[in-house]
Amino acid sequence: MDYQKILIEIEEEIRPLLGEGKVADYIPALAQVDAKQFAISITLNDGTHYSAGLADKLFSIQSISKVFTFTMALKIYRDTLYERLGVEPSGSAFNSIVQLEYEQGKPRNPFINAGAINITDALINFYGDREKTFAAIISYIRELTDDSSIKSNKIIADSEMQNGFRNLSLANIMKSFNNLDNSVDEVVKTYFEHCSIEMNTKALSRAMLYLAHDGTDPINNKEYITQSQSKRINALMLTCGHYDASGEFAFNVGLPGKSGVGGGIVATVPNLMGIAVYSPALNANGNSLVGTKALELFTTKTGLSIF
Amino acid sequence: MDYQKILIEIEEEIRPLLGEGKVADYIPALAQVDAKQFAISITLNDGTHYSAGLADKLFSIQSISKVFTFTMALKIYRDTLYERLGVEPSGSAFNSIVQLEYEQGKPRNPFINAGAINITDALINFYGDREKTFAAIISYIRELTDDSSIKSNKIIADSEMQNGFRNLSLANIMKSFNNLDNSVDEVVKTYFEHCSIEMNTKALSRAMLYLAHDGTDPINNKEYITQSQSKRINALMLTCGHYDASGEFAFNVGLPGKSGVGGGIVATVPNLMGIAVYSPALNANGNSLVGTKALELFTTKTGLSIF
Amino acid sequence: MDYQKILIEIEEEIRPLLGEGKVADYIPALAQVDAKQFAISITLNDGTHYSAGLADKLFSIQSISKVFTFTMALKIYRDTLYERLGVEPSGSAFNSIVQLEYEQGKPRNPFINAGAINITDALINFYGDREKTFAAIISYIRELTDDSSIKSNKIIADSEMQNGFRNLSLANIMKSFNNLDNSVDEVVKTYFEHCSIEMNTKALSRAMLYLAHDGTDPINNKEYITQSQSKRINALMLTCGHYDASGEFAFNVGLPGKSGVGGGIVATVPNLMGIAVYSPALNANGNSLVGTKALELFTTKTGLSIF
Amino acid sequence: MDYQKILIEIEEEIRPLLGEGKVADYIPALAQVDAKQFAISITLNDGTHYSAGLADKLFSIQSISKVFTFTMALKIYRDTLYERLGVEPSGSAFNSIVQLEYEQGKPRNPFINAGAINITDALINFYGDREKTFAAIISYIRELTDDSSIKSNKIIADSEMQNGFRNLSLANIMKSFNNLDNSVDEVVKTYFEHCSIEMNTKALSRAMLYLAHDGTDPINNKEYITQSQSKRINALMLTCGHYDASGEFAFNVGLPGKSGVGGGIVATVPNLMGIAVYSPALNANGNSLVGTKALELFTTKTGLSIF
Repeated sequence: MDYQKILIEIEEEIRPLLGEGKVADYIPALAQVDAKQFAISITLNDGTHYSAGLADKLFSIQSISKVFTFTMALKIYRDTLYERLGVEPSGSAFNSIVQLEYEQGKPRNPFINAGAINITDALINFYGDREKTFAAIISYIRELTDDSSIKSNKIIADSEMQNGFRNLSLANIMKSFNNLDNSVDEVVKTYFEHCSIEMNTKALSRAMLYLAHDGTDPINNKEYITQSQSKRINALMLTCGHYDASGEFAFNVGLPGKSGVGGGIVATVPNLMGIAVYSPALNANGNSLVGTKALELFTTKTGLSIF
Repeated sequence: MDYQKILIEIEEEIRPLLGEGKVADYIPALAQVDAKQFAISITLNDGTHYSAGLADKLFSIQSISKVFTFTMALKIYRDTLYERLGVEPSGSAFNSIVQLEYEQGKPRNPFINAGAINITDALINFYGDREKTFAAIISYIRELTDDSSIKSNKIIADSEMQNGFRNLSLANIMKSFNNLDNSVDEVVKTYFEHCSIEMNTKALSRAMLYLAHDGTDPINNKEYITQSQSKRINALMLTCGHYDASGEFAFNVGLPGKSGVGGGIVATVPNLMGIAVYSPALNANGNSLVGTKALELFTTKTGLSIF
Repeated sequence: MDYQKILIEIEEEIRPLLGEGKVADYIPALAQVDAKQFAISITLNDGTHYSAGLADKLFSIQSISKVFTFTMALKIYRDTLYERLGVEPSGSAFNSIVQLEYEQGKPRNPFINAGAINITDALINFYGDREKTFAAIISYIRELTDDSSIKSNKIIADSEMQNGFRNLSLANIMKSFNNLDNSVDEVVKTYFEHCSIEMNTKALSRAMLYLAHDGTDPINNKEYITQSQSKRINALMLTCGHYDASGEFAFNVGLPGKSGVGGGIVATVPNLMGIAVYSPALNANGNSLVGTKALELFTTKTGLSIF
Repeated sequence: MDYQKILIEIEEEIRPLLGEGKVADYIPALAQVDAKQFAISITLNDGTHYSAGLADKLFSIQSISKVFTFTMALKIYRDTLYERLGVEPSGSAFNSIVQLEYEQGKPRNPFINAGAINITDALINFYGDREKTFAAIISYIRELTDDSSIKSNKIIADSEMQNGFRNLSLANIMKSFNNLDNSVDEVVKTYFEHCSIEMNTKALSRAMLYLAHDGTDPINNKEYITQSQSKRINALMLTCGHYDASGEFAFNVGLPGKSGVGGGIVATVPNLMGIAVYSPALNANGNSLVGTKALELFTTKTGLSIF
């Protein structure tokens, strides 16, 4: 298949949509991003890259970081991780607090905020403190992408922390149910720090390869997680990767994926490739409007939906 | 692949598990079923059947009927159907009433009870009354399976109705929000009537082919729904097909599927086959314990998981 | 104190407010009532009556009937009644279904709909069937008021039943938790039948005397309930008598009271008198707008608030 | 009435109950309190004191402080205070977070934790910072009691803060809905500081007089709040003063009151006296077990229930 041609077609076809949607504006650093940017990259399991658009443009990966931290925690704790949190979809946003309360501080899955905060807490338990934990996360992502320049944006992380009342509330509920071991502040700061990591679509599509290849990176041949754990993460991305639009995404795109409020989305085509798109304006569900459309065009043009 | 050999292997391997779990006992007619029964059938897109176990044994399809009624409603109403209900996962069982109340009588998806009851109401609107609606449903299933003997079990349907307080409650909530057009009694009776249809795994695996073949039955060549609608239903089965164990099923089995409390589960391997399993004892989440295990063995042995 | 003068003053002072608010319109029979009607009556413990306005005008007592049915059930079951339901306030209307679900079908108190439906069920258990239960209720009210002409309005009761989806939903939730013994239909019909009893303010103020006199009617000298039970009912009227405006009413009026959506409100001044007001236009909380104001004027002018 | 005799009788009669119930143990400083202590004091509107038991024993007033802070805020903001919070009862504890979320960060009333935290925030707005706010609160209480030795226990306040995850969660939810102006930490610290004020029953019964006397202290003749505001606070104490046992307390005791988890309860007999009891072991609802019983005996013996 001529992937390069397909990516360029997609770039053409989404152009009229650029400008629709709304850039995340809950913190100033994200609000000032140019809404009309677009990038799409794929990396095949043999390492071949294809891109269209601003594939070198760095952006805040936000919730995409949850895929990396969940991978790390699953490797460390294996199934004992599920004493802390579940793997089921969670329903509406209203629900996030209600259900956390009803289910006594146990988050539904690692891709909702409460779950990802809980995963961060588990990582701090293992690595010892906030600095070492973040160092391990960034080191893991750098290794996956073979790019030692990747780092977190301190301005964004600080700004998130200053406005992170909802996440602080979730962390405190978990703490009150004894389902958070470290200090709320330390955990939530670390969480925002990894959310504020900046990457481009080229690196992100590369980083997804271990999930497109049963847990083992097909380039560096390192087994990060088992085949079964990789299947688990792909299944979770499909059922829970897009907040309250996960069902919509499963239908429209038909690939395991994870979106971030910074405008990025990653996806995998099992056994074939990693994908990343970027466009900062979001649809009503908080997922990249043009990014979702681009992925939809990609599976339509290539027939690579898993359904 | 030697499917017959694989099915027989599976039958052997699940044997030690027969007897674990618990048959649904909320109505007498289901409670008295022999817990140790097992059947598995697949039907390939070319019509070839393979089975192991009691593949001719009739059982109550229960929630599997939701796949058929949603198909019919989607064909009739297309996207206007989503004015009535959503397509997103729904969280915990506790949630089913809370969320219906919070979201003003609009069910989260067609595979939770409230959603399926709502779909039944939409079908009654179209077909005119309860009798005509049920006639259309049974006629559709008979056509799909080329088996005119399929019918509903009146004893079970009546017994469900006499114990259906929770479903009556859901229907009344929808009615109070003007999201149910016909009488609560008429709708819920029709709903229980289609839940009480009895089929065997052979017929059920056959009936799934249109969903394994982009909406068009590969045997009778009839287009029941569009390719896009078929993708929608498969995506929904993956994200919402197993109540509060949908994420677990997506991981363990890795196929779009729908379970029923009678002990049956249907699944599709896109572009390849329909599958049905039966074993009445249920796990803690209300899905067939041995049936789930059998499907897990099937995707492990065949490598046919979509992930 | 010159009560007659005070009542006439009140009638004058509320006149400019007549026409504000909104008559209940969820059923036609209530919607067509003239919004500008007003009546106020008091009956002292010695039997003296004072009235102003349309004190002979019959209206639908609606939720005021809950005071009578709770009295009857408390007399019969004493403290075992609290195995069925609680005595605590319940929060918002949204809550009524959520909390019933969370608290496994046990209503918070006898003055929310779920609680009153549950009480009706308990009465049917005692009296044997729907007809005998209603006969006992109407007979009790006739005895309290010495007025054998009091009856229920069948048109209103039937109309309520045809639109009673929310109440049917609550009854079905309780039934699903085994906290309702008789058929949902029978219980809810009986409930609507006693809600549709028609009385005037004169009779209602008379009927409250047993609650203003420690459980014993000061006119006919009959002990209906014990002093302690009477205190319980007065306390409940104060904390739970006005749905989500009970706190507001306790402050503004400062008397134990119970309102009905038909526009009536009853209240007691402990050891002194029963009061009833009527004006069908309701405020945002579903309580008689002018009726509430009239009671507020009454306690201001007489200084009879319990605070 | 011979109040002294009555108090001594009460002390005798509750003696067998000492030791029942359970001292609050969520922080060490409270857990080590001797469970068998008891005190009761009343102060009449003319200033006469009567006490029995350990009336000079200091204890942590905890939620009783909410009465004082609400008084201060009501004086400052009058009815604009209700833009921040309501005056209605709130249902179950489960509910406290659910309802705060459902009602978009607006607490139901000033006596649940969320409401009292919100009131503290309003006071900080007025007084400028945490120190000045606490100074104003302690100064107000010292003036009411004419006792300049009253102070907060820093060990308890610090310990509460270290375990205050649930309150921090509530504050963060309010903050996320823009219904908290100051920093969560500053507000919650101030809140715990006033909860940790230590008083004895003698001083507390004295401090209630302004609420037993229409807002004006009958001893120092100072008008703290208007008659109407005083009625409001009394009504709130009656409907919301005892968490999820407010209805029970209204019935058993029949006086406006407010309990604290430290084992104290204050109450007023309108126009007559302030009351305070102390006994640290709590009943299942978190109110002083013996204290509640003592108040019940008091209203039974004196006939001073408001019902």
